[in-house]
Amino acid sequence: MSTQRIQKRVSDSAAIMSEIVLPNDGNGLGNLMGGRLLHWMDICASISSRRHAGMVCVTAGIDSVDFASPIREGEIVILNSHINRAFRTSMEVEINVWAEETKTGRRRQCNKAFFTFVAIADDQKPVLIPELIPESKAEKLRFKDAGVRRDFRLVLSGRISSVDAPHIQKYLETRRQSES
Amino acid sequence: MSTQRIQKRVSDSAAIMSEIVLPNDGNGLGNLMGGRLLHWMDICASISSRRHAGMVCVTAGIDSVDFASPIREGEIVILNSHINRAFRTSMEVEINVWAEETKTGRRRQCNKAFFTFVAIADDQKPVLIPELIPESKAEKLRFKDAGVRRDFRLVLSGRISSVDAPHIQKYLETRRQSES
Amino acid sequence: MSTQRIQKRVSDSAAIMSEIVLPNDGNGLGNLMGGRLLHWMDICASISSRRHAGMVCVTAGIDSVDFASPIREGEIVILNSHINRAFRTSMEVEINVWAEETKTGRRRQCNKAFFTFVAIADDQKPVLIPELIPESKAEKLRFKDAGVRRDFRLVLSGRISSVDAPHIQKYLETRRQSES
Amino acid sequence: MSTQRIQKRVSDSAAIMSEIVLPNDGNGLGNLMGGRLLHWMDICASISSRRHAGMVCVTAGIDSVDFASPIREGEIVILNSHINRAFRTSMEVEINVWAEETKTGRRRQCNKAFFTFVAIADDQKPVLIPELIPESKAEKLRFKDAGVRRDFRLVLSGRISSVDAPHIQKYLETRRQSES
Amino acid sequence: MSTQRIQKRVSDSAAIMSEIVLPNDGNGLGNLMGGRLLHWMDICASISSRRHAGMVCVTAGIDSVDFASPIREGEIVILNSHINRAFRTSMEVEINVWAEETKTGRRRQCNKAFFTFVAIADDQKPVLIPELIPESKAEKLRFKDAGVRRDFRLVLSGRISSVDAPHIQKYLETRRQSES
Amino acid sequence: MSTQRIQKRVSDSAAIMSEIVLPNDGNGLGNLMGGRLLHWMDICASISSRRHAGMVCVTAGIDSVDFASPIREGEIVILNSHINRAFRTSMEVEINVWAEETKTGRRRQCNKAFFTFVAIADDQKPVLIPELIPESKAEKLRFKDAGVRRDFRLVLSGRISSVDAPHIQKYLETRRQSES
Repeated sequence: MSTQRIQKRVSDSAAIMSEIVLPNDGNGLGNLMGGRLLHWMDICASISSRRHAGMVCVTAGIDSVDFASPIREGEIVILNSHINRAFRTSMEVEINVWAEETKTGRRRQCNKAFFTFVAIADDQKPVLIPELIPESKAEKLRFKDAGVRRDFRLVLSGRISSVDAPHIQKYLETRRQSES
Repeated sequence: MSTQRIQKRVSDSAAIMSEIVLPNDGNGLGNLMGGRLLHWMDICASISSRRHAGMVCVTAGIDSVDFASPIREGEIVILNSHINRAFRTSMEVEINVWAEETKTGRRRQCNKAFFTFVAIADDQKPVLIPELIPESKAEKLRFKDAGVRRDFRLVLSGRISSVDAPHIQKYLETRRQSES
Repeated sequence: MSTQRIQKRVSDSAAIMSEIVLPNDGNGLGNLMGGRLLHWMDICASISSRRHAGMVCVTAGIDSVDFASPIREGEIVILNSHINRAFRTSMEVEINVWAEETKTGRRRQCNKAFFTFVAIADDQKPVLIPELIPESKAEKLRFKDAGVRRDFRLVLSGRISSVDAPHIQKYLETRRQSES
Repeated sequence: MSTQRIQKRVSDSAAIMSEIVLPNDGNGLGNLMGGRLLHWMDICASISSRRHAGMVCVTAGIDSVDFASPIREGEIVILNSHINRAFRTSMEVEINVWAEETKTGRRRQCNKAFFTFVAIADDQKPVLIPELIPESKAEKLRFKDAGVRRDFRLVLSGRISSVDAPHIQKYLETRRQSES
Repeated sequence: MSTQRIQKRVSDSAAIMSEIVLPNDGNGLGNLMGGRLLHWMDICASISSRRHAGMVCVTAGIDSVDFASPIREGEIVILNSHINRAFRTSMEVEINVWAEETKTGRRRQCNKAFFTFVAIADDQKPVLIPELIPESKAEKLRFKDAGVRRDFRLVLSGRISSVDAPHIQKYLETRRQSES
Repeated sequence: MSTQRIQKRVSDSAAIMSEIVLPNDGNGLGNLMGGRLLHWMDICASISSRRHAGMVCVTAGIDSVDFASPIREGEIVILNSHINRAFRTSMEVEINVWAEETKTGRRRQCNKAFFTFVAIADDQKPVLIPELIPESKAEKLRFKDAGVRRDFRLVLSGRISSVDAPHIQKYLETRRQSES
């Protein structure tokens, strides 16, 4: 029963990373390569997943990511991550990325992404992870959204029909309206 | 006019990379870290985008990625990429990833992903890229799918309404049926 | 006049880094190499110094460091840093280091160190930096201690006589008593 | 009894390293980062400690280090190290660092530092190491100074009182005079 | 008997690698360092040797290599390799290297090299490898040449006399004529 | 006139490097990869060539290399290099490599190789380098051998006929006899 599962809070899995963009991280035009940033995001998310699960976890999937704002060589990159929702053996990790200009200290958000991690034992089999108890209003909203995104992934991968997930269509509409 | 644009074929942008998974690429359980693989995928896709555009391009976004099959330390990783469709300044790159076991030579597909790249000039502004002319039946299908995925991204990012993109719903259905 | 200098708070320079100890960071016995940790500490302190000075700064010196507790491969390392005191062109940065065991989440402090950074312009000449205004009681104590440590460094490097710095002897005594 | 310990000479532990400063070693202003240099110093000192102890040793501490002269990208860095004194399970390693300008071949000393290493067995417990027998006048002086520095570290860490180490005060005075 | 050995084709061992030349790969003049390229060539050849032998192999030797055409930072490097001939426990791997200019897509061959690999078991002892069956005319020519080069290596290393290898002298002559 | 050229001694270009074999340097069987060692050899030789030429030089070619003795992870690798002979714009660098076992300190020679470097200016054109004046008997012998090896390379690359280089055949014979 899930009531027997250990319970953890969102703050238990919060992780912070900082990096300075070095010449080898660049794409030849003075911008950070997208793949290098994804690598850092995966390490940050991996730390959050370890903190929630109490064991090493593996990346099972990532949602689509936009690279809206290019990051320049020499800039400081700050990554924050935490668990949004724990399922049975998998969990959704949210990662936010900022770039910081040294001269002004001005930070601009460059990415927001959702990675899915699975806790696996030494025999490579999935393991039941602690439950996540959202507390604040924002945490509860992210908890709910994580469930929608999960159904969305299941529809996209063909494991459930979008007929069985009518909220997906609603989600797409809502998202469009709130952002327009 | 687009008819004045240079025209290129899919094969012009084909790129192949091979890597051996080293200890530092692992996650502590002997598996390749997801972020490390994404980094390699971005480099491979970046080479395809350069070959199509004739200039350095930047990662603008990636579609969702599943890490179905773990890759083990010491295994050989093979990455293939090519352009599926060129828009005005952006293009969709498809990357396929296989892991190869040394003893048997057996290869298993581990990932398929779609990255979007944009050609930018030294002043960081987008540049018109050559047109992609699909030739084979498979290339034409991928060309068409790339258009659907693009609309899908625009719906997801709220830039167009899903009402204006009825084929999205149809796409989700079709995908579910073909995979079930 | 110093009253014309920009004033900053300790929190303005706070930096946090997280790292996972990889095989190549080890010493062959499964422990993190001291030099690798010093490298990370320097990067973290460098970020704090940039945040205070608003420009790239260089490491001018480090105080003695003890490596009390070995850090194991696979453990998460967390580094925190902030400015303790700004002099005219140099500043003292304090770095604290913890290791975190994945299974229990237990953290143990492994290091505390003091690095001195200098702000330099493109012509490699030192530049006047903002003033640091300590606010809390703890910040004021660290501010004062940073001054003692600076005199101590000047005595050690022979730039002033310990006769001219009687508080050095007192400092050594006090430190011994508070720790015994 | 210590008379039964293996005896080694200073030259038995001499180590030499050379490095070229690459773009990723820099701080964004074209100078070698302090932390990167400390990493190299630790590897060089680690080789000396292995040669004396006949086993892998770990960094237990480093004395304060000044970064007097900046090292430029593209310059050659030369590191020399040797044991100054062996205690029971720990030893002091001295490291000297020079930078060499390619055009003129001119070398300038950039650092002198003292690292303490401890020999540890596979069970992570300290192990008795060979005795160091200083031979030349310079070696004997460094042997003596290493003892003073050790007492100094013990006073600084509060493990002995400076009252019990009157030579510390004398050392500080002497050092000041000899350098003025 | 060799007839009992597994038989493989040249295409079974074909390997392709692509790399982008990064700042840290350069020599300070904007050209790829020779040693960095050799490192990549060894990895590519290593993959070919694994594919032929079905196990990890080690580099036993390399023939002389000319670096005729410098490769520039930012260029794409393409490496191709395959087995030319399998002996009992060793095999000759041929590696060809091209550099590709991004703007024009123009490729120029920069290197051709021959590496010798040996298949070794976990106990570090050589292991009998599959036979290579050359099929095309070009493959048969390379197969024959590989035998000449092997005798040449044996003469150079003093293991056989050049008197016992008269074709060596002939080979040198032939090579000179075909290239003049 | 060459009499106007700066003259340097062999010792002016002597370079020493030390490295510890890390997990990522290995081939999956616990041995150092050949390509990684070649990379280090190239860096060491590059330092010698800079010291002789007073400028950055590029690798123009390497002679055949045997990897007689495998080097194990965790071992210390020592590289020594110096110029054997300077031609007009190119020079031959000899590199010797030893592996050192930590427990016993026992060193075994693992490689001896000859690299050719060329001094090039910022415009990528070759530059006249200082003359090398061999002093000891050993240096004079290596100076002479370097000339033979150069002719040998010219014959191999088809730039001169072996008929015009009768000493090549003699060299092969001599080498065979001295090593048998």
